[in-house]
Amino acid sequence: MKIAVFAGDGIGPEVTGEALRILDALDLPLSYHEGDVGGAAYKKHGHPLPQATLDTAKACDAILFGAVGDFDCDHLSRDLRPEQAILGLRSANGLFANLRPARVFPGLEDTSALKPEIAAAIDLLIVRELNGDVYFGEKGMRTTADGLREGYDVMSYDESEVRRIAIAGFEAAKKRRGLLCSVDKANVLETSQLWRDVVIEVSADYPDVTLSHMYVDNAAMQLVKNPGQFDVVVTGNLFGDILSDQASMCVGSIGLLASASLGERKTEFGTFGLYEPIHGSAPDIAGKGIANPMATILSAAELLRHSLGQEEQAARVEAAVAKTLADGILGGDLGGSAGTREIGDAVLARL
Amino acid sequence: MKIAVFAGDGIGPEVTGEALRILDALDLPLSYHEGDVGGAAYKKHGHPLPQATLDTAKACDAILFGAVGDFDCDHLSRDLRPEQAILGLRSANGLFANLRPARVFPGLEDTSALKPEIAAAIDLLIVRELNGDVYFGEKGMRTTADGLREGYDVMSYDESEVRRIAIAGFEAAKKRRGLLCSVDKANVLETSQLWRDVVIEVSADYPDVTLSHMYVDNAAMQLVKNPGQFDVVVTGNLFGDILSDQASMCVGSIGLLASASLGERKTEFGTFGLYEPIHGSAPDIAGKGIANPMATILSAAELLRHSLGQEEQAARVEAAVAKTLADGILGGDLGGSAGTREIGDAVLARL
Ligand SMILES: CC(C)[C@H](C(=O)O)[C@@H](O)C(=O)O
Ligand SMILES: CC(C)[C@H](C(=O)O)[C@@H](O)C(=O)O
Repeated sequence: MKIAVFAGDGIGPEVTGEALRILDALDLPLSYHEGDVGGAAYKKHGHPLPQATLDTAKACDAILFGAVGDFDCDHLSRDLRPEQAILGLRSANGLFANLRPARVFPGLEDTSALKPEIAAAIDLLIVRELNGDVYFGEKGMRTTADGLREGYDVMSYDESEVRRIAIAGFEAAKKRRGLLCSVDKANVLETSQLWRDVVIEVSADYPDVTLSHMYVDNAAMQLVKNPGQFDVVVTGNLFGDILSDQASMCVGSIGLLASASLGERKTEFGTFGLYEPIHGSAPDIAGKGIANPMATILSAAELLRHSLGQEEQAARVEAAVAKTLADGILGGDLGGSAGTREIGDAVLARL
Repeated sequence: MKIAVFAGDGIGPEVTGEALRILDALDLPLSYHEGDVGGAAYKKHGHPLPQATLDTAKACDAILFGAVGDFDCDHLSRDLRPEQAILGLRSANGLFANLRPARVFPGLEDTSALKPEIAAAIDLLIVRELNGDVYFGEKGMRTTADGLREGYDVMSYDESEVRRIAIAGFEAAKKRRGLLCSVDKANVLETSQLWRDVVIEVSADYPDVTLSHMYVDNAAMQLVKNPGQFDVVVTGNLFGDILSDQASMCVGSIGLLASASLGERKTEFGTFGLYEPIHGSAPDIAGKGIANPMATILSAAELLRHSLGQEEQAARVEAAVAKTLADGILGGDLGGSAGTREIGDAVLARL
C-alpha cells in the first residue's frame, strides 16, 4: 500500500507528520513516498508541481496532501504559484469529485459561530466538482477595442462532466439520508442550465433519492439559516469552493475538517484519491508546533477508507479522534491549548 | 419628484403598497408611475420587461422595485423569464453599483442563526458590481468536438468597470469606518487578478482607507466566523450575489434588508437609482397579507436619500421602522404575528 506524501508549505509538514504517526500505528503494510509541492517545491526546483512529484503520485495508491501557499510566491506568474500544485494534481489525476463532509463533533456544538442547536443539526456532505468550471476554462488578459486591460475566464461544463459528478452525488445520498440538493445559478448562467438539465436526467436512475435544486445565493443563505436541512449538496467547482468553506465554518472548527478527492482510477485496494485538510498552510503559525493536526488525521482516515479499502481502520482512527475531542484535548483554534504533537499523542493513545 | 413603481410578482405588490403609504405621508411633491415587470408583465405583454416599462424608468428620478419571480415562467427561454426584468433594468440604466447594508436592528440580535453577540457586531455594507462579470458575458449552449452538449458563460471585467465600482467602495468606506475589503479569487481567475490590480491602483487616491484583499471562499467563512470584522466589502457581480445574501441571513431577517442600485446618471435631486428589498417574490405567501413590508419601506428610505436628496426624510422613515421593531411589532419571518398592513400602519403611526 503505497502512499504519496506531499506535505507542502507552512504547517503542512507538521500536521502531515502527526497523520503519519497515526498511520504507522495501524500495522498495515504501508510505504511512504515523499514529493515536493507548492512554494517549497518552487524554491527547490523552480516549479510548484515538479514532474517527479506527478510521477510519484501516479505510482502510488493515494496521496496524503498537507497544504500549499506561501506569501513569498505571491509575485510569481500564475503557473508558478503554490496553488497550481493542488490544481495540477487534481486535473492530472482526473480527481473530479471532492467530498467534504461537515458535521459537528459531540461536545463541540459551542465552538460554532452559529447557535449551538443550529450547529448541532449539521450533518452534510458537499460533493464538489473539481476538474472543470471556470477554474480550467480558457483564461487570460486581453485588450478591449477601447484599449483597456481586460481579464477573462471561460466557465463551462459539458454533459459528461456533469453526469459523473451527479452520479457521485446521488450515490453518496443513497448511502446517507437520501436527499440530494443540486446548487447552481440557472436563472443567470447557461453552464448552470446544462448542469440542472443533466442532474435531472441522472435522477431518473435514482428514484429513491429526493432531488432538489437551489440557487447558489439562496444556498449560501440556507447554510446559515438552517444547515440541518442539507444531506448531500452537489455543485460545481466554483460554487463548491465557496459553499464548502462556508459550511466548514458553520461547523465551527476548520481544523477538524477533512476532504477526499476521487476520480475513476481504481487501485488494488479501492479508488485512487487525494486527501487533504480543508484548512490552508497558515504561514503565521507555521513551525510553532501549535497547528491542529486533526483535519489531516481525519483525511488519513478517509484515505484508509476510500483508497485502501480499510473501513475498519478508518473508523478506528475517527473514533480515536472523537474520543480525544470529547476528552477536551483541543487545539488553540478550538479555544484549547494542546499543541500539534500533544494532539497526535492523545489520538495515538486512544487508538 | 417622479418615482417609477414596478411592483412585479408574488408579494411584490403588497409590500410596495405599504412603502407607498409611507412615502405618501411625507408631504413631498411625489408622483408615481407604474410599470409592469417580471412574470406579471410576461402574462400581460409577452415580455418580462416591456419597452413601456423601460421608458417609464427613463422618465423618472428613481425606481421602487418590488420583486420578480414566478414558477409559471420556469419553462420559458431565458430571455423571457422574470429575472430578466431586474437584470435588464440594471443594465439598461447603467446601475453598476449595488449597495447592500447589513446590520442588526437593536432588539433583534436573537433572530439571527448566529450567536447574538456575533450577530450584534454586524454593521457592514456590501458594494456589489451589477453590470458585468459572468452575468453579462457571452453565453450559450454549444456542442463539443465529441458531440456533447456544453453550456458556457464568459466571465470578464475590464479596468474601467473595476475602477468605477472600486471608487464606489472607497467612497463608501471613507464615509464609514474606513475599511475596505476587496473580495476576489485571484489565485485562480484572471478576471480577479485584473480586479485586484485595479483596486490597488485606485487605492492610491484613498490613503485614509485601509484596503485588504480576501479570497471569496475565505470571505464566505469569515462572514460566518466573525462578520463584525467587515466595514465595506467590494466585489464582483457573482461573488456579490452570493456574499450579500449570506450576509443578510447572518443578520437574521432578510425581510428587513434594503438595497440601492446606482449608476452615473444624475437627476435634479440626486443620483438615479433602483431600490428593492433583498428578498424575492415569495409566491408561497403571496396575497395572504402576511409578507413583511419592512425591507421595501427601508428601500424607499434609500430612494429618498440617494435619488431625491431627502436625507432627513430618509432618516425619519428609518427611525420609524426601528421604533416599530423595538416595540416588538414583528412579521412572521421574525417570529412575530403582525401582517403586512398592520406593520405599515405601525410605521405610519411612528413617523
Ligand atoms: C488553493 C485554491 C486554488 C483551492 C481551490 O480554490 O480549489 C482551495 O481554495 C480549495 O478549496 O482547495
Ligand atoms: C434574480 C437574480 C437574477 C438576481 C441576481 O442574481 O442578481 C438576484 O439574486 C439578486 O441578487 O438581485
